[in-house]
Amino acid sequence: MLGRLYPGQICSAARALEVVGERWSLLIIRDAMFAGITRFTDFQRNLGIAPNILTKRLGEFVEAGIFELRSADGDRYAEYVLTPKGRELQPVVVALTEWGDRWAAPDGPPVTYEHDGCGGRVALKLECERCGGTPPPEGIKVRLSRWLQAVRSGS
Amino acid sequence: MLGRLYPGQICSAARALEVVGERWSLLIIRDAMFAGITRFTDFQRNLGIAPNILTKRLGEFVEAGIFELRSADGDRYAEYVLTPKGRELQPVVVALTEWGDRWAAPDGPPVTYEHDGCGGRVALKLECERCGGTPPPEGIKVRLSRWLQAVRSGS
Repeated sequence: MLGRLYPGQICSAARALEVVGERWSLLIIRDAMFAGITRFTDFQRNLGIAPNILTKRLGEFVEAGIFELRSADGDRYAEYVLTPKGRELQPVVVALTEWGDRWAAPDGPPVTYEHDGCGGRVALKLECERCGGTPPPEGIKVRLSRWLQAVRSGS
Repeated sequence: MLGRLYPGQICSAARALEVVGERWSLLIIRDAMFAGITRFTDFQRNLGIAPNILTKRLGEFVEAGIFELRSADGDRYAEYVLTPKGRELQPVVVALTEWGDRWAAPDGPPVTYEHDGCGGRVALKLECERCGGTPPPEGIKVRLSRWLQAVRSGS
């Protein structure tokens, strides 16, 4: 099923959502990323997710190279370990958390992300690589790549 | 349906996904945010989405305060305009795009995000607010808030 949800969209966000946009997907990744969970039973308990859904998600993640399946304790159980491709989803999880903290956390943020080195709070910034500025939402524009321009103009 | 997908999860990312985690949701927001789309027919054409799904998503977004419904051209048509709450989802869309650019764009990024002021490329950074450092994924830890610690310890 992976890779076939938004076939008409030439868009990296759509490609990403085809891999991690299904229900529970990003919460499974969150648990691996920030709670250090690796075992099926621990994901299942922490999420309260139906086992058949969890099996499907983890299988698709292994297929997509988000998790690597390892055997542990002399083959007694399996571990799902995030690959670099999976770990690089961290900004997606943090961006969702920051938005939820701001707009859907009436009791205050349940957790904060901290820099392990100094204990400071870590936050996402949209920064201009040229001038170092942090433009407001309306100050960011999309530029189409040359190849997408060519596709759009039908050449 | 909004707000009831992950009732057991005390987590801002889960709360955010309850609002924007359904199929097509973030692509609708992307189109409003970066393509300036406001009209039902334009969303429909650009996404190739089934009208009943689009109606459902836009209705939920208005209910959740992500879009504001305005009448335009002397009431001849309706416009869906992102609210500040909706616009602040920009880092979520950019984070997904950056991940897709890196892991699912064999022909190169279809689009780039640019600073409207200077034309520089805009990118997300996870930055420590105390030391200004940009920790690697494994250098970021979660700290539970006091109230969540209390909930977890059953007090």
